[in-house]
Amino acid sequence: MYLVKLYVTHKPSILDPQGEAIKKALHNLNHNSITSITQDKYFEIKIDANCKEDAEKVVKKSCEELLVNQNMETSHYEIKEV
Amino acid sequence: MYLVKLYVTHKPSILDPQGEAIKKALHNLNHNSITSITQDKYFEIKIDANCKEDAEKVVKKSCEELLVNQNMETSHYEIKEV
Repeated sequence: MYLVKLYVTHKPSILDPQGEAIKKALHNLNHNSITSITQDKYFEIKIDANCKEDAEKVVKKSCEELLVNQNMETSHYEIKEV
Repeated sequence: MYLVKLYVTHKPSILDPQGEAIKKALHNLNHNSITSITQDKYFEIKIDANCKEDAEKVVKKSCEELLVNQNMETSHYEIKEV
Protein backbone atom coordinates (compact mmCIF):
# COMPACT_ATOMS: atom_id res chain seq x y z
CA MET A 1 0.00 0.00 0.00
CA TYR A 2 1.29 3.46 -0.88
CA LEU A 3 0.38 6.81 0.64
CA VAL A 4 0.56 9.79 -1.69
CA LYS A 5 0.50 13.39 -0.53
CA LEU A 6 -0.58 15.44 -3.52
CA TYR A 7 -0.46 19.24 -3.63
CA VAL A 8 -2.45 21.04 -6.32
CA THR A 9 -1.54 24.72 -6.41
CA HIS A 10 -2.30 27.75 -8.59
CA LYS A 11 0.26 28.50 -11.27
CA PRO A 12 2.20 31.60 -10.19
CA SER A 13 0.93 33.53 -13.23
CA ILE A 14 -2.70 33.04 -12.13
CA LEU A 15 -4.24 35.67 -9.88
CA ASP A 16 -5.25 34.24 -6.48
CA PRO A 17 -8.21 36.35 -5.22
CA GLN A 18 -8.92 33.87 -2.40
CA GLY A 19 -5.42 34.29 -0.98
CA GLU A 20 -5.71 38.07 -1.24
CA ALA A 21 -9.05 38.02 0.61
CA ILE A 22 -7.61 35.87 3.41
CA LYS A 23 -4.58 38.15 3.72
CA LYS A 24 -6.83 41.17 4.04
CA ALA A 25 -8.94 39.43 6.72
CA LEU A 26 -5.79 38.50 8.68
CA HIS A 27 -4.49 42.08 8.46
CA ASN A 28 -7.87 43.27 9.79
CA LEU A 29 -7.23 40.97 12.76
CA ASN A 30 -3.89 42.78 13.23
CA HIS A 31 -1.69 39.98 11.93
CA ASN A 32 0.25 42.46 9.84
CA SER A 33 3.43 40.40 9.87
CA ILE A 34 1.84 38.04 7.33
CA THR A 35 3.24 39.17 4.00
CA SER A 36 1.62 36.54 1.79
CA ILE A 37 -0.77 33.61 2.01
CA THR A 38 -2.03 31.15 -0.56
CA GLN A 39 -4.75 28.53 -0.15
CA ASP A 40 -4.48 25.41 -2.27
CA LYS A 41 -5.65 21.80 -2.38
CA TYR A 42 -4.04 18.91 -0.55
CA PHE A 43 -5.01 15.30 -1.26
CA GLU A 44 -4.07 12.19 0.68
CA ILE A 45 -4.46 9.13 -1.51
CA LYS A 46 -4.03 5.49 -0.55
CA ILE A 47 -3.19 3.20 -3.45
CA ASP A 48 -3.07 -0.58 -3.37
CA ALA A 49 -0.25 -1.17 -5.90
CA ASN A 50 2.48 -3.77 -6.29
CA CYS A 51 5.32 -1.30 -6.68
CA LYS A 52 6.03 2.40 -6.40
CA GLU A 53 6.14 2.80 -10.19
CA ASP A 54 2.58 1.45 -10.55
CA ALA A 55 1.33 3.76 -7.80
CA GLU A 56 3.00 6.74 -9.47
CA LYS A 57 1.31 5.90 -12.77
CA VAL A 58 -2.08 5.95 -11.04
CA VAL A 59 -1.33 9.33 -9.43
CA LYS A 60 -0.18 10.89 -12.70
CA LYS A 61 -3.20 9.56 -14.62
CA SER A 62 -5.60 10.73 -11.86
CA CYS A 63 -4.11 14.23 -12.01
CA GLU A 64 -4.42 14.37 -15.80
CA GLU A 65 -7.92 12.96 -15.95
CA LEU A 66 -9.59 14.53 -12.93
CA LEU A 67 -7.73 16.25 -10.12
CA VAL A 68 -5.73 19.00 -11.84
CA ASN A 69 -6.93 21.78 -14.13
CA GLN A 70 -3.83 21.88 -16.33
CA ASN A 71 -4.67 25.40 -17.53
CA MET A 72 -4.33 27.13 -14.19
CA GLU A 73 -2.99 24.60 -11.70
CA THR A 74 0.22 22.72 -11.14
CA SER A 75 0.89 19.74 -8.89
CA HIS A 76 3.59 17.87 -7.03
CA TYR A 77 3.50 14.84 -4.78
CA GLU A 78 5.36 12.77 -2.22
CA ILE A 79 4.92 9.00 -2.15
CA LYS A 80 5.83 6.42 0.47
CA GLU A 81 5.07 2.80 1.25
CA VAL A 82 2.84 2.30 4.29
CA MET B 1 11.16 35.69 7.18
CA TYR B 2 9.46 32.39 7.93
CA LEU B 3 7.60 30.08 5.57
CA VAL B 4 4.77 28.08 7.13
CA LYS B 5 3.11 25.12 5.44
CA LEU B 6 -0.25 24.73 7.14
CA TYR B 7 -2.54 21.74 6.59
CA VAL B 8 -6.19 22.04 7.62
CA THR B 9 -7.89 18.65 7.47
CA HIS B 10 -11.26 17.15 8.42
CA LYS B 11 -11.40 15.51 11.82
CA PRO B 12 -11.54 11.74 11.28
CA SER B 13 -14.98 11.57 12.93
CA ILE B 14 -16.44 13.95 10.32
CA LEU B 15 -17.92 12.44 7.16
CA ASP B 16 -16.06 13.55 4.02
CA PRO B 17 -18.60 13.51 1.16
CA GLN B 18 -16.19 15.35 -1.18
CA GLY B 19 -13.55 12.63 -0.77
CA GLU B 20 -16.15 9.93 -1.39
CA ALA B 21 -17.33 11.68 -4.55
CA ILE B 22 -13.77 11.97 -5.87
CA LYS B 23 -13.10 8.30 -5.10
CA LYS B 24 -16.20 7.27 -7.01
CA ALA B 25 -15.18 9.42 -9.99
CA LEU B 26 -11.68 7.87 -10.00
CA HIS B 27 -13.14 4.36 -9.83
CA ASN B 28 -15.37 5.25 -12.81
CA LEU B 29 -12.12 6.11 -14.63
CA ASN B 30 -10.88 2.59 -13.76
CA HIS B 31 -8.42 3.65 -11.06
CA ASN B 32 -9.72 0.92 -8.78
CA SER B 33 -6.43 0.57 -6.89
CA ILE B 34 -7.25 3.83 -5.07
CA THR B 35 -8.65 2.69 -1.74
CA SER B 36 -9.15 6.10 -0.16
CA ILE B 37 -8.77 9.79 -0.97
CA THR B 38 -9.31 12.93 1.07
CA GLN B 39 -9.23 16.53 -0.12
CA ASP B 40 -8.19 19.16 2.38
CA LYS B 41 -6.77 22.68 2.57
CA TYR B 42 -3.13 23.62 2.29
CA PHE B 43 -1.88 27.13 3.08
CA GLU B 44 1.55 28.61 2.43
CA ILE B 45 2.09 31.60 4.67
CA LYS B 46 5.04 33.99 4.71
CA ILE B 47 5.56 35.77 8.02
CA ASP B 48 7.97 38.60 8.69
CA ALA B 49 8.88 37.80 12.31
CA ASN B 50 12.00 38.24 14.43
CA CYS B 51 12.11 34.67 15.70
CA LYS B 52 10.45 31.32 15.14
CA GLU B 53 8.44 31.63 18.37
CA ASP B 54 6.84 34.89 17.20
CA ALA B 55 5.99 33.37 13.82
CA GLU B 56 4.40 30.34 15.51
CA LYS B 57 2.26 32.62 17.70
CA VAL B 58 0.93 34.33 14.56
CA VAL B 59 0.13 30.97 12.93
CA LYS B 60 -1.68 29.66 16.00
CA LYS B 61 -3.70 32.86 16.43
CA SER B 62 -4.59 32.93 12.71
CA CYS B 63 -5.85 29.34 12.92
CA GLU B 64 -7.95 30.09 15.99
CA GLU B 65 -9.39 33.33 14.69
CA LEU B 66 -9.92 32.59 11.00
CA LEU B 67 -8.45 29.64 9.19
CA VAL B 68 -9.68 26.60 11.12
CA ASN B 69 -13.22 25.59 12.02
CA GLN B 70 -12.40 24.02 15.38
CA ASN B 71 -15.65 22.02 15.35
CA MET B 72 -14.88 19.88 12.36
CA GLU B 73 -11.29 20.58 11.32
CA THR B 74 -7.86 19.98 12.73
CA SER B 75 -4.53 21.47 11.66
CA HIS B 76 -0.81 20.94 11.71
CA TYR B 77 2.06 22.94 10.28
CA GLU B 78 5.73 22.97 9.36
CA ILE B 79 7.78 26.12 9.76
CA LYS B 80 11.18 27.10 8.42
CA GLU B 81 13.28 30.22 8.05
CA VAL B 82 13.62 31.42 4.45
